[in-house]
Amino acid sequence: MRAVRFHGRCDIRVDEVEEPICGNGQIRPAFVGLCGSDIHEYLGGPTIVPVTPHPLTNEKLPTTLGHEFSGTVEEVGSEITEFRVGDRVVVKPNLFDGTCSNCLMGIFNCCEKVAFIGFSSQAGGLSDHIVVDSRHAIPLPESIPLDIGALVEPLAVAWHAVSRSPLQTNETVLVVGAGPIGLAIIQVLKVKGITSIIAVEVSERRGEFALALGATEVLNPVDVDAVMQIRALTGNAGADIVFECSGAQAGLDTAIAGLRVRGTMVVVSLWEHRPTVDTFAVVFQEKNVIGAALYDDGDFEAVIDEIASGMLCYYPICCPYFLIRQVPSADLFSDIGGIQPRPMITSKIRMDDVDARGFKALIEERDKHVKILVDISA
Amino acid sequence: MRAVRFHGRCDIRVDEVEEPICGNGQIRPAFVGLCGSDIHEYLGGPTIVPVTPHPLTNEKLPTTLGHEFSGTVEEVGSEITEFRVGDRVVVKPNLFDGTCSNCLMGIFNCCEKVAFIGFSSQAGGLSDHIVVDSRHAIPLPESIPLDIGALVEPLAVAWHAVSRSPLQTNETVLVVGAGPIGLAIIQVLKVKGITSIIAVEVSERRGEFALALGATEVLNPVDVDAVMQIRALTGNAGADIVFECSGAQAGLDTAIAGLRVRGTMVVVSLWEHRPTVDTFAVVFQEKNVIGAALYDDGDFEAVIDEIASGMLCYYPICCPYFLIRQVPSADLFSDIGGIQPRPMITSKIRMDDVDARGFKALIEERDKHVKILVDISA
Repeated sequence: MRAVRFHGRCDIRVDEVEEPICGNGQIRPAFVGLCGSDIHEYLGGPTIVPVTPHPLTNEKLPTTLGHEFSGTVEEVGSEITEFRVGDRVVVKPNLFDGTCSNCLMGIFNCCEKVAFIGFSSQAGGLSDHIVVDSRHAIPLPESIPLDIGALVEPLAVAWHAVSRSPLQTNETVLVVGAGPIGLAIIQVLKVKGITSIIAVEVSERRGEFALALGATEVLNPVDVDAVMQIRALTGNAGADIVFECSGAQAGLDTAIAGLRVRGTMVVVSLWEHRPTVDTFAVVFQEKNVIGAALYDDGDFEAVIDEIASGMLCYYPICCPYFLIRQVPSADLFSDIGGIQPRPMITSKIRMDDVDARGFKALIEERDKHVKILVDISA
Repeated sequence: MRAVRFHGRCDIRVDEVEEPICGNGQIRPAFVGLCGSDIHEYLGGPTIVPVTPHPLTNEKLPTTLGHEFSGTVEEVGSEITEFRVGDRVVVKPNLFDGTCSNCLMGIFNCCEKVAFIGFSSQAGGLSDHIVVDSRHAIPLPESIPLDIGALVEPLAVAWHAVSRSPLQTNETVLVVGAGPIGLAIIQVLKVKGITSIIAVEVSERRGEFALALGATEVLNPVDVDAVMQIRALTGNAGADIVFECSGAQAGLDTAIAGLRVRGTMVVVSLWEHRPTVDTFAVVFQEKNVIGAALYDDGDFEAVIDEIASGMLCYYPICCPYFLIRQVPSADLFSDIGGIQPRPMITSKIRMDDVDARGFKALIEERDKHVKILVDISA
C-alpha cells in the first residue's frame, strides 16, 4: 500500500509499504488535513519525528505522516464490540504512556513521553490503510461528511484552548494569527456565545476568512497599529482574553500588549525558537499566560456535537465557495448555530501530489490556503 | 534639610533642600530600606525616575529616593483626625491617578500612570522630613520597632505575590532567587503553612538566610543540577508553584523547568532586558505564568498583623545576629509563629554613607547583604 513518509527535512516520499495487519481495528483513511506542525516538521524537522526509537512506539524515521483525519472502519479485531465494518470515525492521534508523573495526575495530553499517530509511528493518516487501537477512534455521525471529519482534530485543539481559558460571556477576545488554529478558535468562540472577537492577521485573505467564520473585527498590522486599534475597540483597556496562534515574535508582542491588566493570554502556537517576552508588561500589568496543548478527554466529541448541530442547518452540503475559490460572506454563516467549518477547506488534492500541491503550496502560497485535505481515495 | 536625590546613573547625592510644608501630614522618617529597584535605577536608570515631568506628580529628576520606610508623625494637617503627632507609621509609596482603565477596574496597583514616593516625587524616605497624603500612612503598632517597620514594604510585595498565586496547603513551592523579595516570600509562605519550600540561590550566604527564614531545602545551581534536584524532591513532578525572584535568564529557565505540569509561576522580578521564554515547555506542559506587582489594599495591614503576631514571641528585641554578623540558626525561628523578619537586616548606616556603604555595598558585596537600612536619625 502507499504511505507518505517523512525521511528528513524537505524530504517526504510516497513509499510502497506493507499493509499493516489488523490487531483490533483497521481504518481506511478518507480525508487527511495537512497541519502547521507538519510544515514545521517539513521545514525544520526532524523534531517531533524521532530519529532514535521512540520510548513509547519504539519507531523512528522514516515514519508515516497524517494526524488530522477521518476514515471508515475496514476490519475490526475479534474483541472489539463498539465498532463495526463501515463505521465512520475520526482518529484522536496522541498516544500517552500512563505512567509518567503527568499521566499519574490524569493530565494525559501533557504526557512526558507523548507520541503521535502521524509523526512518531508507522501508522499515519496519509496511507491507504491504518491500524489503530480502538480507543483512538471517535465515531462520526452520518450527518457529518468525511471531509469535514478531517477538521475535527484542529477544532479539538481550539476547543481545548478555549476551555483552558477563564473566558466569560460578554468578554472581548483577541485572536492573533488567523491560520487554521486561529480560525478554529474563532469558530469555537462563536459557538460559545462570544460576540466581540478581534482577529489580527497579516494576510488579507486569511483576514477575510476570520470575518466569515465569526471574527467581529480584523486588524492587519501591515496597515494599522494593531495595539492602538485594540485599545480603541476596548475602551482603552485591552482584550480580556488573547489567543496567541501566530508563533511569531511580532504576534506574541501584539498579543501581550493587546491584553488588558490581569487578562489571560493562551499560547497555542508552536515555536521553532524561543521568543523574548515583555516581562515588564507581564509583571506590572499582572498579566496571565497559560499554555494549551492538544486536547482533553471529551474534546473531540464536543466538537463533533457542535459540527453536527451546525450541519442540521447548513445550507449547501457541498460548499460552492470551494468550487469558485471565493471567501464566503459572513452573513451566510451568521445566526445558524453550531460550528460550520467547511470554508476552512481551501483545496483537496491526491496523495501523489502531497509534496508539490500540499506541503509546497502551504509554504509558497500560504496566503491562498487555510486547510488542504488529501483525498486518499482520489 | 537633607535629602538623598537621584541625579542620574551612579549619581546620587545628599542634597540640602527646603523642608516641605505640611499639607495634611508630615512624617519624620526613621529607617529606610535600600531596595533592588533602587539598585536597578542606580546602575541602569533613569527608568522609574522621570526625566520629563511625571504625568501624575509633575516632578522630574533629581527626585528623592527611599520608598521602604517607617517614621513618626511630626505634624498633621487641620482636617486629619486619624493620626496624631507621635504616631508611628509605615508609608505605602505607590500613587495612582484613579482615572486610567486599570484604576477604573479597581486594580490600582497596576495604574497606567503609577508613580512612587521615593522615585517619581520630591517626597522620598531618604530625607529628614517628608509630607505625604494621610492615605499613604499605615499605622504601626507599638510592638513593632521602627527598623522592622521599614521591612513592611518588601514583605507586602511578597504577601501580594503569594496572594496572587493559586497556592494550596500541602503544595511544594519553589522560590528562585533568595534576595530580599525571595526571602520575604519564603517568610510569607511559612506563615501561610507551607511546609515544603525549595529555594534556589547562587550565593551561599543568601542560601543560609533562606534556610533560616523558612526554606526547607536550598539548592545552589553552582554545585548541583537544580532542576534534577527539584524533580528528585517532588517525585519527578516539579514544584506546584514557583516564585521567580531572580530577574536573571538562568533563574527564569530554572523556574519554568522546575514547575510541574499545569503549575503556576509567579514573576515578581524586575528585568532590565527582555528574557527569552521556553514556550515549548509552557505550551506542552500547559504551565501558567502570572505577574505580581506591588500590593493590593490590605496587604500592608496583613503583613503588620503577621509581624505583630511574630513579635509577641520574638526572643530578642535587639537581634544579636546583626551585631555579630552571623546567620541565625533555623531552629531559633521555628514554630514560634508570625513573620520574624529581623535577620533580613544585615546593616544599618547613616544617611551620609548611603552611596559608599549603601548602594556600593549592595552592588560590590552583594553576598554579604540582604537589607541595608539607613537610620535617618544616626
